[in-house]
Amino acid sequence: MPQGIRLAVVGITGAVGQEIIRVLEQRDFPVSELIALADPREAGSKVQFKGESITVEAAEEKAFRRAEVALFAVGNDISLMLAPLAQKAGCLVIDNSYAFRLRDGVPLVVPEVNPEDIAAHQGIIANPNCSTIIMAVAINPIYRAAGIKRLVVSTYQAVSGAGINGLRELEQQSRDYLEGRDGTPEVFAHPIPFNLIPHIDIFVDEDYTREEMKMVWETRKIFHAPDMLIAPTCVRVPVFRSHSESINIETERPLSVAAARELLKSAEGIVLQDDPAQNQYPMPRYTSDKDEVFVGRLRRDLSVDNGIAMWVAADQIRKGAATNAIQIAERVVADNLF
Amino acid sequence: MPQGIRLAVVGITGAVGQEIIRVLEQRDFPVSELIALADPREAGSKVQFKGESITVEAAEEKAFRRAEVALFAVGNDISLMLAPLAQKAGCLVIDNSYAFRLRDGVPLVVPEVNPEDIAAHQGIIANPNCSTIIMAVAINPIYRAAGIKRLVVSTYQAVSGAGINGLRELEQQSRDYLEGRDGTPEVFAHPIPFNLIPHIDIFVDEDYTREEMKMVWETRKIFHAPDMLIAPTCVRVPVFRSHSESINIETERPLSVAAARELLKSAEGIVLQDDPAQNQYPMPRYTSDKDEVFVGRLRRDLSVDNGIAMWVAADQIRKGAATNAIQIAERVVADNLF
Repeated sequence: MPQGIRLAVVGITGAVGQEIIRVLEQRDFPVSELIALADPREAGSKVQFKGESITVEAAEEKAFRRAEVALFAVGNDISLMLAPLAQKAGCLVIDNSYAFRLRDGVPLVVPEVNPEDIAAHQGIIANPNCSTIIMAVAINPIYRAAGIKRLVVSTYQAVSGAGINGLRELEQQSRDYLEGRDGTPEVFAHPIPFNLIPHIDIFVDEDYTREEMKMVWETRKIFHAPDMLIAPTCVRVPVFRSHSESINIETERPLSVAAARELLKSAEGIVLQDDPAQNQYPMPRYTSDKDEVFVGRLRRDLSVDNGIAMWVAADQIRKGAATNAIQIAERVVADNLF
Repeated sequence: MPQGIRLAVVGITGAVGQEIIRVLEQRDFPVSELIALADPREAGSKVQFKGESITVEAAEEKAFRRAEVALFAVGNDISLMLAPLAQKAGCLVIDNSYAFRLRDGVPLVVPEVNPEDIAAHQGIIANPNCSTIIMAVAINPIYRAAGIKRLVVSTYQAVSGAGINGLRELEQQSRDYLEGRDGTPEVFAHPIPFNLIPHIDIFVDEDYTREEMKMVWETRKIFHAPDMLIAPTCVRVPVFRSHSESINIETERPLSVAAARELLKSAEGIVLQDDPAQNQYPMPRYTSDKDEVFVGRLRRDLSVDNGIAMWVAADQIRKGAATNAIQIAERVVADNLF
């Protein structure tokens, strides 16, 4: 039984930070000391971990000197500022932001897909974008068996992707709407209750959003498949925590739906939930607070040779962020890679 | 100025029936007499039309004898029972149900796409499925210019597709959910508030739903394109009235996004709403109560030659049902085809 590592969590008061605490507890991650870090304005506040009350400290270089591994759950700018300090202090960073994901020398890891990449880290390991992680887990068994030529994916993304304030905005403004008032959107570009917003993150090249391009760039890096063709559309929906995705896969080689079903049934990290006769398929209300990626509506794509269609849902804060980061940390600890 | 026709509306108390009244008024459809028909149990109740109170009558053969054209806004079974009675009475049926859509000799019409098919009717003209109508209008300019080889479409369908009870269930059960209670779903297979249900209509062949197969079968019939390849995924979302669709189009011949944009800008029945810099794109909250199909997020499909991606939204009760039926009726009257 390992005594555990000295683990820092940066951004511990945010939606992902809070979920990291819960997942660490549930998975009984070996922690000898939990170092709770956040913005200096939150220093002195308390968080609960395994029945203990832990004082939040300012995320500064000296705090990282006490830590062996740090889970970063903050925005790009903060990660860019603090990760080099942690590195300098000799602390391995597992970063949830976009800041380092595409950098050479930074492994981008979904443990079910490319755990072998962890060993090559140079002090930072990146956690992929939530939509990318969820898709990567779901398509991985099919990729291994038959290769993937092309993906067309449309997402149905929960408000938790915008953090605690996103969750609050959906709840409060849904109440407002039902009482005949219309709140002013603050987190989202437009009102989200009973609406859909086909716009997540900023617009970049060719009128794609960065959220969409993350699904292209990051999926290719995770699978070491620079030529994989991916057409994404990312849409915010009035759902609290789980992202869903409609994915049409064109494989390189033939793969029957029956064979794909068998592969998915036994795949790591996947729950196959696919029984149309019993109205069973993944739905975001019921995949929340769970670590697995739920796959269903598996069927032949009627429009292309070697095509498979699926519908996927998974908790965005869990497998899309906190759980994936902790799974990386588990491998780091198991293989002594920090 | 034509004096107008004797028009029956069957199912006038339902969500589509009520919308038909509003659209008839707004478009100033030439009606000399409105014959309000519904289930015998609703006979004697009143509906308002152009400031007049009209008594609802039982939908029976003798009522059809007074009508020249009947707009049917009822379910398949009722349409199958009543449409032959209307035909026998010499009344042209424009039917909103699925019952007759795929029958030989029954034109299936989206007036922006195939108005010329109307003339071939034998007493029944079918209104397509809502998701199909909305997609057909949006892709039509691209189809005319460059042909369409393949469509991959994922829908985000409003609860209004399930009628007034669907609207009520979303509203009431959203309130319940926000107050910590969970209502029992009656209209939908599962709770719809803050959820997604990848299942509309019944499951048919190869684990596709009939809603999905309608998009395949009906689109091919409307465009007279039996070989068009279509891969649909239909999903119910917690939105009240407008359906949205993420569509990836592979054209037969090259067509630039700029050229597609120009075509869509001037196309009948389409509002191009596509200005990412100003956060302008179609959203279902703002396309409700409107007759047009809103198209945006127009961009190159990064994963295929000759690919164009778009995001579409339109009012399901309007263009997806009532408006399309009335537009068919307008052509029938203008060309004296009843």
